[in-house]
Amino acid sequence: ATHSLFLLPGDGIGTEIMVEVEKLIAWTNQEQLTDFSTDSGLAGGSAYDKHQVAITDEDTQKALNADAVIFGAVGGPKWDNVPYEHRPEAALLRLRKEMAVFANLRPAICYPALADASSLKRELVEGLDILIVRELTGGVYFGEPKTITDLENGQKRAIDTQVYETYEIDRIARVAFDLARTRSGKVHSADKKNVMKSGVLWDEVVKQVGKDYSDIELHHILADNAAMQLVRNPKQFDVMVTDNLFGDILSDVAAMLTGSLGMLPSASLGAPDPVTGKRKAFYEPVHGSAPDIAGKGIANPIAMIASVAMALRYSFGMIELATRIENAISAVLSDGLRTGDIAQDNRKTVGTEEMGAAVLAKLKA
Amino acid sequence: ATHSLFLLPGDGIGTEIMVEVEKLIAWTNQEQLTDFSTDSGLAGGSAYDKHQVAITDEDTQKALNADAVIFGAVGGPKWDNVPYEHRPEAALLRLRKEMAVFANLRPAICYPALADASSLKRELVEGLDILIVRELTGGVYFGEPKTITDLENGQKRAIDTQVYETYEIDRIARVAFDLARTRSGKVHSADKKNVMKSGVLWDEVVKQVGKDYSDIELHHILADNAAMQLVRNPKQFDVMVTDNLFGDILSDVAAMLTGSLGMLPSASLGAPDPVTGKRKAFYEPVHGSAPDIAGKGIANPIAMIASVAMALRYSFGMIELATRIENAISAVLSDGLRTGDIAQDNRKTVGTEEMGAAVLAKLKA
Ligand SMILES: CC(C)[C@H](C(=O)O)[C@@H](O)C(=O)O
Ligand SMILES: CC(C)[C@H](C(=O)O)[C@@H](O)C(=O)O
Repeated sequence: ATHSLFLLPGDGIGTEIMVEVEKLIAWTNQEQLTDFSTDSGLAGGSAYDKHQVAITDEDTQKALNADAVIFGAVGGPKWDNVPYEHRPEAALLRLRKEMAVFANLRPAICYPALADASSLKRELVEGLDILIVRELTGGVYFGEPKTITDLENGQKRAIDTQVYETYEIDRIARVAFDLARTRSGKVHSADKKNVMKSGVLWDEVVKQVGKDYSDIELHHILADNAAMQLVRNPKQFDVMVTDNLFGDILSDVAAMLTGSLGMLPSASLGAPDPVTGKRKAFYEPVHGSAPDIAGKGIANPIAMIASVAMALRYSFGMIELATRIENAISAVLSDGLRTGDIAQDNRKTVGTEEMGAAVLAKLKA
Repeated sequence: ATHSLFLLPGDGIGTEIMVEVEKLIAWTNQEQLTDFSTDSGLAGGSAYDKHQVAITDEDTQKALNADAVIFGAVGGPKWDNVPYEHRPEAALLRLRKEMAVFANLRPAICYPALADASSLKRELVEGLDILIVRELTGGVYFGEPKTITDLENGQKRAIDTQVYETYEIDRIARVAFDLARTRSGKVHSADKKNVMKSGVLWDEVVKQVGKDYSDIELHHILADNAAMQLVRNPKQFDVMVTDNLFGDILSDVAAMLTGSLGMLPSASLGAPDPVTGKRKAFYEPVHGSAPDIAGKGIANPIAMIASVAMALRYSFGMIELATRIENAISAVLSDGLRTGDIAQDNRKTVGTEEMGAAVLAKLKA
């Protein structure tokens, strides 16, 4: 095989929606549109149940060796009380860090057919297309010290540390500016420089990098105001670059605006290898493992399928096939097919399998 | 005088809207509804212009001595390049810390007359009444180390530290639970315990405090999901308690949902004095100094006036007068008066002074 994919379905609906990905890949391979080898492993609670860790060293190594990792979702109430270092999310954090996929691309696109599903007024979100570029391997997620210590009188002190160095900000800024060149040519950089020293450095470095991109319009925005403005008038934004923690929240707000949470994929990319030019890459839907609907066959597989399209685009340069898949998704929606999360009057509600099959049928047509 | 107010108008529209507060207080004093002495000082850029600091020691001392501080807003592009420790926001941070006003109450109320001004669909926000209880004197805002250091090769490293101790979480949780008792009896506690140790301790302490409030329904929610859910279906929330940084963002999202940013006040309260029972208190509108419209006489004074109502309620136990002022605000809106920020077709747009006068006229009536 030319390229290797490592599939980590994870927990909850992760396993159900990954099945639709497997069918898709089987078909593209069969049609010789792709030549993928696939392997799969366990992550999150399902790994914990079998191995008492959120992900094994072996599966981590497989992720590091693969050309791309396709990830479902992790977590669920079943694992609420496992030891902290083995909680389901630890799989995600370990993979992000070890794969060094520092650039998290989270598109927030409002599918026209779904604009009414947004809680915002239709005119504010119709045609929305924002790309949040979130730093993913630094900041308060990984900074040390990160501890809870016992004080006197039964008191405790918890510490998390937000750390950023120039090079980390520089490289994520470049990703954002490069992407802006392929879009509207506008970048908003969000931080809390009025309160945080990491925000001061963030702003300084982004502005410095901006000098190499004189064709791009750069705007600074405070993170709290960015959250507000996303709610007030999201279409003012195109590319927004921000740190790990603000990116976590702002990308969720942006995703929710679209009314299409079950539709949104994401990509996490590493630096290009200096010799081969290859970059490690990790693709996952923006939504979670949705324990409440797991096992019912009703989850929306579209974000997961769209994540594969992102992999084709960003890891394998198969722009045409990626676009075909994205068009197939739009076509199925235009036909009126909906999963439960995006159900509408006068539209047909279908399950995971039927939705996956419908997308595949469009591809075949 | 029975009570002392210290007025800090600050910058931009802060000075314009404070004028309406002064008129209001002059009237309540004259009617012997209150017996306030007032003094005023400089904060933010206006203090920097005169004294080269964001707030002087003398004004800080006056704030500490007053029964309540009424604050406008600070900041503006004019002071974008002043030394970091003297930037306008430093006044706010110094006062919060020295006054030890750890409990920041930020109501997000959707005025019925303004429900259409929200970017959300009317039915999602009509009647919305959320209270965000934000921890205000701890966390990443004040934790040490908070530094930028030079590394080799021109690289820098920036560090901010999120620190929380048990007692800090315990006391803010009690404020939230106590307030929930006067409302719907429901508290959501938001953190990132899946990533942050401070989140783990936060959740542990809040749950422990919750045992003293068995009549209150306590829900845990991850901060990123809280941001999403605020956008998706805000009416599911009543009281939300969270840390300083998440509170900054979540309260801004909640405020923006209402479509009434120019209408929302806030209160920041200290611990009751063990002897007198008095608590230090700081009241300010949620909106900023709006440099773009400063000096034009068009700013909305309602959030500022509503902040005085909050002071009457929380610092002076004058519930009836507070309610009268709040009703006067609603009545003026029902009459169709609007400032530019909330302008509507078929409603009359007025300036700061006219709006302030209209509220006062309702009080007099
Ligand atoms: C599951 C969690 C650790 C993760 C994060 O906080 O990054 C998630 O919220 C996300 O945005 O991918
Ligand atoms: C002005 C700034 C320092 C402040 C904060 O971050 O707390 C503001 O955003 C707020 O919410 O009061």
